[in-house]
Amino acid sequence: MIPRTELEFMLDEICDIDRVIELEQYAHLDREQLTLVLNTIEKIGSDFFASSAAKMDEEEPNLRNGVVVQPEEAFRAIDAARDAGLFSTSFSLEEYGLQLPHAITACANAALASDNTSMNAILMLTAGSARLIANFADENVKSRFLEPMVSGRFTGTMCLSEPHAGSSLSQIRTTAFPQPDGSYSLTGQKMWITGGDHELAENIVHLVLARIEGAPEGVKGISLFVVPKFRLDDKGGVSDRNDVTTIGLNHKMGYRGVSNALLSFGDVRNCQGFLVGEENQGMSYMFQMMNELRVGVGATAAGVAIEGARQSRGYAVERVQGTSLDAGSNAREQVAIIQHPDVRRMLLAQRSLSEGALALSLYAASLLDDLDVENDAIRQAVLQRRISLITPLVKSWPSEHGIRANDIALQVLGGAGYTRDFSVERLYRDNRLNAIHEGTTGIQALDLLHRKVVADNGLALEEFLNSALDDVSEWMRLEELEDLGLELKASIERCQVVLAKLLEARDRGVANSVLFGNATPFMDLIGCLTVAWLWLKMAHAALVRLKQGATGSDYLSSKVAACRYFITWELPRALSVVDPLQRLDNTWSELEPAILIAD
Amino acid sequence: MIPRTELEFMLDEICDIDRVIELEQYAHLDREQLTLVLNTIEKIGSDFFASSAAKMDEEEPNLRNGVVVQPEEAFRAIDAARDAGLFSTSFSLEEYGLQLPHAITACANAALASDNTSMNAILMLTAGSARLIANFADENVKSRFLEPMVSGRFTGTMCLSEPHAGSSLSQIRTTAFPQPDGSYSLTGQKMWITGGDHELAENIVHLVLARIEGAPEGVKGISLFVVPKFRLDDKGGVSDRNDVTTIGLNHKMGYRGVSNALLSFGDVRNCQGFLVGEENQGMSYMFQMMNELRVGVGATAAGVAIEGARQSRGYAVERVQGTSLDAGSNAREQVAIIQHPDVRRMLLAQRSLSEGALALSLYAASLLDDLDVENDAIRQAVLQRRISLITPLVKSWPSEHGIRANDIALQVLGGAGYTRDFSVERLYRDNRLNAIHEGTTGIQALDLLHRKVVADNGLALEEFLNSALDDVSEWMRLEELEDLGLELKASIERCQVVLAKLLEARDRGVANSVLFGNATPFMDLIGCLTVAWLWLKMAHAALVRLKQGATGSDYLSSKVAACRYFITWELPRALSVVDPLQRLDNTWSELEPAILIAD
Repeated sequence: MIPRTELEFMLDEICDIDRVIELEQYAHLDREQLTLVLNTIEKIGSDFFASSAAKMDEEEPNLRNGVVVQPEEAFRAIDAARDAGLFSTSFSLEEYGLQLPHAITACANAALASDNTSMNAILMLTAGSARLIANFADENVKSRFLEPMVSGRFTGTMCLSEPHAGSSLSQIRTTAFPQPDGSYSLTGQKMWITGGDHELAENIVHLVLARIEGAPEGVKGISLFVVPKFRLDDKGGVSDRNDVTTIGLNHKMGYRGVSNALLSFGDVRNCQGFLVGEENQGMSYMFQMMNELRVGVGATAAGVAIEGARQSRGYAVERVQGTSLDAGSNAREQVAIIQHPDVRRMLLAQRSLSEGALALSLYAASLLDDLDVENDAIRQAVLQRRISLITPLVKSWPSEHGIRANDIALQVLGGAGYTRDFSVERLYRDNRLNAIHEGTTGIQALDLLHRKVVADNGLALEEFLNSALDDVSEWMRLEELEDLGLELKASIERCQVVLAKLLEARDRGVANSVLFGNATPFMDLIGCLTVAWLWLKMAHAALVRLKQGATGSDYLSSKVAACRYFITWELPRALSVVDPLQRLDNTWSELEPAILIAD
Repeated sequence: MIPRTELEFMLDEICDIDRVIELEQYAHLDREQLTLVLNTIEKIGSDFFASSAAKMDEEEPNLRNGVVVQPEEAFRAIDAARDAGLFSTSFSLEEYGLQLPHAITACANAALASDNTSMNAILMLTAGSARLIANFADENVKSRFLEPMVSGRFTGTMCLSEPHAGSSLSQIRTTAFPQPDGSYSLTGQKMWITGGDHELAENIVHLVLARIEGAPEGVKGISLFVVPKFRLDDKGGVSDRNDVTTIGLNHKMGYRGVSNALLSFGDVRNCQGFLVGEENQGMSYMFQMMNELRVGVGATAAGVAIEGARQSRGYAVERVQGTSLDAGSNAREQVAIIQHPDVRRMLLAQRSLSEGALALSLYAASLLDDLDVENDAIRQAVLQRRISLITPLVKSWPSEHGIRANDIALQVLGGAGYTRDFSVERLYRDNRLNAIHEGTTGIQALDLLHRKVVADNGLALEEFLNSALDDVSEWMRLEELEDLGLELKASIERCQVVLAKLLEARDRGVANSVLFGNATPFMDLIGCLTVAWLWLKMAHAALVRLKQGATGSDYLSSKVAACRYFITWELPRALSVVDPLQRLDNTWSELEPAILIAD
């Protein structure tokens, strides 16, 4: 679970949630109702999600006689989520949803993932695929599929990858043949389908990328289809099996509570699908929904990291081992391990990484909330650029640094942490997927540097860095933050130099492989800088509250300490790449494969 | 497996193995025989260790009716190792061993661990416990237990930790009661015993730390005992069960091919043990053997990392996905992923981390070889100081950075890497233990900073840094290495400043919790510096060979490239801690627990 104090602090200080819920579209909400929503998430999370996570990991989905077998606990958890309306948080009232701000959905993802990230994946993917239907499908498809998905009776999947096309979607081969009744008949295989088969819902609705027969090559010939596991009858009820076969389930290192399937469509040429929106627009629809899903992945990675931090804190105060360093070598009295400086380091590092990841996710979610209500065209454009810029960061930074927190949690528990008796090892295995699915870290980095920075002439990044400089100047007027503010300002200015050098190299016509060759370290730099800025924002808010005599002074002090940790120890680590970045170091980008693979 | 080119390059350039085998004690060895030994390791490793690793992981040891069940493959692997004499590499001819240099044993550990680290753990622990018997036991014990262990008929364990005393051995409670016949009767529980129970050998010989009834408190009252699973008859044959009970097996995240047991000694007061050496000297015996075992842990961590690198290289040249960055956005032709700069980065990073880890392990082993034959008292003292200094580094650096390489290997394979269909995920789980067992990273760091640096007045470290400066001056006379040499020299000088500041703070009487509070980042800094020095050494040797027109130019060029990677990208990351280290930053060391745990 994510402590409530944490969620509320972030909703206030990162998302300014009171301002958000004052907007017209949230007329049905007040702060008290938000509290009720958070109560529900906490209760379902702890009573049904957390309590089933270990069992669902241990007894991973298993295909027996064509049926996916999972433990009873999984059924109880999804039923509870359904009954509580947790599939519907991000949908409007007209879409049968609760019409909550994006920030609240991000909180739900983080909190529920901290309890059981496999189960939360089903909710998140169902919302993502239902969103495609809500935004782009015609009335016929929408009227039959949307409500059952938003209510959780049907779950959804995203069928993008194929065995030969994992990250490179332009190469997909699944084909859709038009039928006289306006539907399509699909054939092909889809790989890595999370929630691709199970018995947890009445039906599974696959959102499938495929080429209509004769469509142009590449991404411009890809369309989007709805393909249900069971066909619907005229009244929308679940009827016969559609021609979708589960060829096998992947056996994963973690994330084992949810199935991951290889699906075959149209083995007997009887796979019915319905076109979503226009022909050949599938990739653009998918991209329009991606921002939301990538915020979701960031939030879940943050949630899993926070859970590890919380568990290792609990262990560190209870486990007695070793004597105090300050007590000298003749000391006999054993102390709780939290007394050891290195354990304190590990606890503080986890706070700074995991809470930094959550802050980044909620910041990205609140940008989506801002955009929803922005009417001014110029400010809209700025917001859109900022969202584009932040999207690869929010997908990647929590994924890469969240698991570092999980790694530290395991280390705090030592040998115990390495056993399956404690959940920190499961959290570590679970979180490892986040740097891979929904676009690997390398792909996000290329998206950032290529499309969001260089192709944008650096506009979005420069806007962001300049506004961050203004913020820092403001926050460091609190003398407790002056040294950290100076450090951060200098860091931002160094990133501005990197940006200028990259644009200059682009103008010189440097080869793409060199210009974009260091995209991953570049993304880590910008990600860490963004999180450092969020940490200073949080530390400033905490200090203001402390000066006002707010309750929870230990919690508020932890924010200041974690900020100090991040800017003292993590930010310089991230800045260590500035020098090779600005001289476009080509150590690997131009290295011959024969040298790389030589034995 | 570790490519033979790799082992031979390191044996020549890091260990100067030809000089070692010219020594009198290796009169039975020449280069050709070493080749035969390496052939045997490679063959047993690939035919029996590698081929059984996945199965042994999948069917982890299972306690059924008091018997540990493991798959048939485990029996075949240990039989093959036994038949090939692989338990005996580090023992002298009089000790029934092959009398090979430490460097060769380190190669064997690295290579066999790269194939099956669980099985190698049994070999390594048997050698470690037999070493205690060889060095410290009386003739009676030695004559009965040494030969069966060196031949692998009996395996050995180290019984140190207890349920309430994991890292803090001063607190152990297992008790030994003297018996009229000179033996002892033991009672107590031992936890985390790797290889603690299995059916793979005729007998299991536990080396147990315990207190003789009435012994002084703390480490000064701890003695060492031999406690066999089966008692021996007068002729040394295996006879009745001793009173040692396996209470349960731990279920671990990785390293699943070898059992890890909770053992109970003397449940019916009939557990026979034999004192090793003098009363109350158990801890000092243990420490004298630790150097060797910690080199072994480093070598295994390096081996597992190298195996991941090798597998991901294989995948990167075969997996076709995406178009070349330089081919522009209209390109259609799909390329092998090794063509993508970010994949090249991941392959080069793995080489630099994993081969750097192996170089460090072999350097530490060659120091042990040097010490074996050094007669000059002054040079002996220098070597002893250097070994003391390097021991915590060789245990930790490969453990912490080797798994980073395994993490990258998994990422190269993407979704496939996250499944159990490929072994990179197992390697990642396996390697995670190395930062925990045989003393966690935090404990090694305290050993380094407290005992090996501050208590030593910085002598060993200063000697090492000065000799490294001399080496670098020499190596950078090759103009290809000039820029890297300058970078490394500047880095070493910055470490000298850190050392001076720490000693100055000690003299000022700074509290231990602050003085040693940043021990872990300090150790990472010194470890990375040491590995950077080894990389420059390897790059220098490779360039010299290249200039002489040696064969294998791609392999030699890979060494230069990996060195450049390490000093350009990894060393600056490590140096990012210099500033907070030298001002004794106390961000965490003095932070109140209430703040650290606040929710």
